[in-house]
Amino acid sequence: MAGCGMSCLKILGAVFGGGLLLTIGILLGHFAIPKGETGQGAPNWVKTVGRDLDESLLQSFMDQVESGKIRENLKALAARPHMATTEGDEELVKLMLSRWQDPQTGLDSASEDVYGAFLSFPDPQKPNSVTVVENSSLIFSTRRSEKNVTADQAHADVVQPYAAYAPPGTPRGKLVYANQGKRSDYQELVNMGIDLNGTIAITRYGGAGRADKAVNGAEFGVAGVVVYTDPADINDGRASEKETYPNSWYLPPSGVERGSYNGYFGDLLTPYYPAKDFTYRIKESEIQGIPPIPTQPIGFEDALMLICNLDGPEAPSAWQGSLNCTYKVGPGFRTGGMFPNTSDVQVNVHNQRRIKNSSNVMGFIRGSEEPDRYVLYGNHRDSWVHGAIDPSSGTAVMLEITRVLGKMLKEGKWRPRRSIIFGSWGAEEFGLIGSTEYTEEFYSKLRERSVAYINVDISVFANATLRAQGTPPAQSVIFAAAKQVQSPASSSGSVYDNWRNHFNRNSPIYGNIPNLGTLGAGSDYASFIHYLGITSMDIAYTYDRNKTSARIYPAYHTAFDTFDYADRFIDPGFTSHQAVARTAGNVLLRLADSLVLPLNVSDYGEKLDELYNVAAQGDFLANLSASNISLDPLKAAIGRFKLAAADFNQRITKLKEEESPSPLQIRMVNDQIMLLERAFLNPLAFPNKYYYSHVIWASKSSNHATFPGLADAYTNAVKTGDWDQVRKHLTIVVQAVESAASTLEAVA
Amino acid sequence: MAGCGMSCLKILGAVFGGGLLLTIGILLGHFAIPKGETGQGAPNWVKTVGRDLDESLLQSFMDQVESGKIRENLKALAARPHMATTEGDEELVKLMLSRWQDPQTGLDSASEDVYGAFLSFPDPQKPNSVTVVENSSLIFSTRRSEKNVTADQAHADVVQPYAAYAPPGTPRGKLVYANQGKRSDYQELVNMGIDLNGTIAITRYGGAGRADKAVNGAEFGVAGVVVYTDPADINDGRASEKETYPNSWYLPPSGVERGSYNGYFGDLLTPYYPAKDFTYRIKESEIQGIPPIPTQPIGFEDALMLICNLDGPEAPSAWQGSLNCTYKVGPGFRTGGMFPNTSDVQVNVHNQRRIKNSSNVMGFIRGSEEPDRYVLYGNHRDSWVHGAIDPSSGTAVMLEITRVLGKMLKEGKWRPRRSIIFGSWGAEEFGLIGSTEYTEEFYSKLRERSVAYINVDISVFANATLRAQGTPPAQSVIFAAAKQVQSPASSSGSVYDNWRNHFNRNSPIYGNIPNLGTLGAGSDYASFIHYLGITSMDIAYTYDRNKTSARIYPAYHTAFDTFDYADRFIDPGFTSHQAVARTAGNVLLRLADSLVLPLNVSDYGEKLDELYNVAAQGDFLANLSASNISLDPLKAAIGRFKLAAADFNQRITKLKEEESPSPLQIRMVNDQIMLLERAFLNPLAFPNKYYYSHVIWASKSSNHATFPGLADAYTNAVKTGDWDQVRKHLTIVVQAVESAASTLEAVA
Repeated sequence: MAGCGMSCLKILGAVFGGGLLLTIGILLGHFAIPKGETGQGAPNWVKTVGRDLDESLLQSFMDQVESGKIRENLKALAARPHMATTEGDEELVKLMLSRWQDPQTGLDSASEDVYGAFLSFPDPQKPNSVTVVENSSLIFSTRRSEKNVTADQAHADVVQPYAAYAPPGTPRGKLVYANQGKRSDYQELVNMGIDLNGTIAITRYGGAGRADKAVNGAEFGVAGVVVYTDPADINDGRASEKETYPNSWYLPPSGVERGSYNGYFGDLLTPYYPAKDFTYRIKESEIQGIPPIPTQPIGFEDALMLICNLDGPEAPSAWQGSLNCTYKVGPGFRTGGMFPNTSDVQVNVHNQRRIKNSSNVMGFIRGSEEPDRYVLYGNHRDSWVHGAIDPSSGTAVMLEITRVLGKMLKEGKWRPRRSIIFGSWGAEEFGLIGSTEYTEEFYSKLRERSVAYINVDISVFANATLRAQGTPPAQSVIFAAAKQVQSPASSSGSVYDNWRNHFNRNSPIYGNIPNLGTLGAGSDYASFIHYLGITSMDIAYTYDRNKTSARIYPAYHTAFDTFDYADRFIDPGFTSHQAVARTAGNVLLRLADSLVLPLNVSDYGEKLDELYNVAAQGDFLANLSASNISLDPLKAAIGRFKLAAADFNQRITKLKEEESPSPLQIRMVNDQIMLLERAFLNPLAFPNKYYYSHVIWASKSSNHATFPGLADAYTNAVKTGDWDQVRKHLTIVVQAVESAASTLEAVA
Repeated sequence: MAGCGMSCLKILGAVFGGGLLLTIGILLGHFAIPKGETGQGAPNWVKTVGRDLDESLLQSFMDQVESGKIRENLKALAARPHMATTEGDEELVKLMLSRWQDPQTGLDSASEDVYGAFLSFPDPQKPNSVTVVENSSLIFSTRRSEKNVTADQAHADVVQPYAAYAPPGTPRGKLVYANQGKRSDYQELVNMGIDLNGTIAITRYGGAGRADKAVNGAEFGVAGVVVYTDPADINDGRASEKETYPNSWYLPPSGVERGSYNGYFGDLLTPYYPAKDFTYRIKESEIQGIPPIPTQPIGFEDALMLICNLDGPEAPSAWQGSLNCTYKVGPGFRTGGMFPNTSDVQVNVHNQRRIKNSSNVMGFIRGSEEPDRYVLYGNHRDSWVHGAIDPSSGTAVMLEITRVLGKMLKEGKWRPRRSIIFGSWGAEEFGLIGSTEYTEEFYSKLRERSVAYINVDISVFANATLRAQGTPPAQSVIFAAAKQVQSPASSSGSVYDNWRNHFNRNSPIYGNIPNLGTLGAGSDYASFIHYLGITSMDIAYTYDRNKTSARIYPAYHTAFDTFDYADRFIDPGFTSHQAVARTAGNVLLRLADSLVLPLNVSDYGEKLDELYNVAAQGDFLANLSASNISLDPLKAAIGRFKLAAADFNQRITKLKEEESPSPLQIRMVNDQIMLLERAFLNPLAFPNKYYYSHVIWASKSSNHATFPGLADAYTNAVKTGDWDQVRKHLTIVVQAVESAASTLEAVA
């Protein structure tokens, strides 16, 4: 280094050092100094606003879900019968509130919403019964209550079996056996030459809705209806005491399925409006869809006495059950049986209808970035008796999910991106009343802000496999969750793999995948999907159909649905409960925390194709063509939808590739995802069906598995020639699909 | 500086210099290096996402609005008659497209949306007329067309006067004078002892809707209806040629007001669905609200011949007009008049109904930050004849606004925060068809994304003062704009000041302010506010009511509504047009560019109080109380709304005080503002009124100025005793107000 002495070197060093310092300074200034809101640089929200789902946190959530805690929850929840608005129910309101307000494991807040619900109860002073009478002598009477086999059945709060909303009365007449009480069943009896006027019809559960058995019967002149559970339908044929609970999961002979005999949902006196003090109530005489004639459920122990003594022709083979005799149809009893052949059957119903205060308990977690986006999760709280499985297995799962989330929240480890709302609904058993009133009261804001509704009612029907239902966008998030949860069955693999082994289908897009079922109106998701158009899903563990053909778990709605029953027969070890809690909680976290909503809108395309294809072939198509009705506009609309969805997904992919996409761009695509389901709503499409306004999922009577309005109009037109209604409903469907496409297309 | 030589000093210098360099580096790194999307720091959108309205740009926009350009626009637009779907209309479709697609001053894009609209036209081969006949002799016939006074009236495209949708027919009968054709007018004739069966009724415009004159008449047995414009109602009494156009703005004696005789809006065959090829069309026989009997409008030159020759008792004084005689009511002609007293009047209508393609022309500007939020601005394009004032004065203003915005856009000086959509609607004159079909076709996305709709139809009725109508949240933005525009009147001051001088009210909150009018269904805002629940407004310049009591500008819907008429009498110099363009454009820019939407939601509180107070006093309250109906829940709901709105505005104030509020926080409050109006929608509230679903603004027949459903139910209950409907509508209102409150309350 010629020509440079010590000082010179020092200066050079200082110059170089200065350059280095400047560089370090620039780097420090650029990267190391956080740009707070008070500074000139980027505010704090720049980091948080783009935060995505934290997979490790998701794993930690799942790890913390304990089967033992769920078992404890269930024991507490099912300790006492808790029919809607009873003391047992009110106790559970307090339990929910205290859990969700717990300082260590609670939510941000919890509250109680009260509605004046129109309910129906038996008269404790005048028990209902079905009796055999000859002149004025009582020959036989059904049991007043189920047999006490585990002490639970003797609890003072066990409500006697009854058909909620069936009118009081004591009709008496000759007994007929009317199979499942479908319109076609009564018609068949008439075809056999039987005069149904003034008869009492005994029908078995299944085939038709509870209320329909009486509504249909009344149309044929039937004066009263008895409903029972046939061992063929519930017990895989087993009917003896030693084969049934407490020796197995099967229903004891004295077991009676209670239920709401209400064909609609929501409070019956306040359709479309929350059942508050200020709300106008229609007259009881204006209520539709409830039994017009006295109706009473009984157990098969008693049903056997009635059916096996019937006179008349043999019932068709499809009508035969597993009571130990050949079923005849009546009318009246045979000579030489248990009863004089002149005796009548009398249905004694003393039900009372009353408006009672029923509560929803609501729990909230405020979202950090998008507090105005709601992920909803709910289950009803009320049961018929102890309701260990229905609904407490679901509530036990919900409480374990909220415990783990509440703990993470209170420990400062987590706050969701979006708000989470938990609902413990009241009076579901009477017709989804609590959840429906909630959607009525908060219609506007729920419609505008809700991302999805997750329902876990009965969480474990049986411990064989996951069973999920939902609208197509729910498929992707449920699959993602199910793949991350270990199957509780002894075989290895995920809940997803096990599910696919039990229920699968071949998707033209995805190949062999688990079969996501469709939502009817069987639980509290009904008003969310049908009235509000919110993407909804229902998650549970269920049967291996190779092992049982039971219509539902056998103790359903009886006094045998107890903690002991659940603990010993439904899910010993509670590992299926745990799997459901992990799966549903995983779905919940994905919906609450993912930057882009994990709902794949393009999956609606497959469903639209499927519905279209039913109409676009065979007689259906031929009959449309004969009436000069073309499906081309529908085909074009579905094509437009599929293209829009594919383009939309591509835009999302690009957006995700950006290092730091604009929060308003993300919000835009999320709003499109959220509101897609709303585009299928048409509140004027089905003027005679309360709440149903989702053009894809509305209820239908037709057997054609196409769009419900189109299917029903078609079936009617074939009979009546009214093809204009078919044209109208085709327009409704095309318009809905076009709207859905338009929602996904580029916004400007 | 003892003990330190040169080298030492240099080293010290290097150390200090190094510290300085480090500091400079830090400062540079922190502040000077833009944090691009590829860097580790803040992305570019951090700056743009929070950008607010640029006041200097707003001023620049207003400065660039030229009255001369508006005059040129109007000359081009009104050059030729352009009734919906005619050649003149199609020419204007091309004009709009070319303006909006202009490379220098156009928008981002423009397109044409076509609907198959159900229209009604006279038969060019068989002109309509009203004739006086005796036996088979024709004694008198009304003119076939207006008198040619400026050559415009002789244009081959001038459509002969007719009542659109009136059915064809040639009823003949004795003439009666039925005032305005209100139900009460016909009743009064019956009370006078006149048998209306088979008569022809002559009625004057005003008082009742056009169609109602015939609908009401038919209920009383009237066979045909003649409608005319009385000089008392339109001309401040002036009736002679020398006092009327082209010598003044008053209507010449031959002038005939055309119009749609359609009581509803939207395409008549496709209610609720866009009139596309695929759409189901109802039968013509199912159409409601159009004349069931032949109806024809005439000028007062002809009306005088009919009315001044009538026989019978004198009409009540309120029925007298400015024709030069005492009006009698008939039936039939007097002895000694112009016509034999045995002669009849015959209404000869040969209208034809046809489905024709009508276009909306749509123009778009993509929003930079929130492309999925739409600010809508529109006017119809179709006229009855030349339509210089109705609607071209509005279109001339719209084109000037889009020229200036387009120029700023193409020059790269501006891009709005939100997307802007311009609509040039087709077939408005037949019943707001183009705009309604648009809202039907894009119902879902418009409902979810639209911030507001600005309508400027007739932009200048007269040049005295601003007149604005809108829902309460529009008040704040219109006031803000009107304060920034110079009044075109010779007196100094703002458009706002001048407006307040002409129309004002005392607000309990703001003191003396201009009176914002309410929206009916008179122009294309109807489906936006009533069906979609989008905050809407209509802006125009209008009369000094000290100078004229004309029902509307006199040439309305006649062949005298020409460029010459506008240029000479309505707005010479076009300064009122300019003021409207500046005001409406200012409103548009504020809505499109403001960070927080400039719609003050709390102004709804004043309106709710006002509507409530009408019901909460006098007979109304007494009758409710007598039927045990309490208004307390409504009062409580309004209180809740006002509290929520006040809190909401406080939250906005705090948010605005933050230096850099989170874009998602801003979006949240904007969504609350945007969706407030939607919370008042109830699509099931008025099942018999097409499209009306806004609980505050629906149409009503009752004179009580309270909530429309409540008012109508009340008026009906007073007559029929059906107080349950009052209870129901009270529930509907309470529920809507509660929903509105809930929308504004903190979201979580």
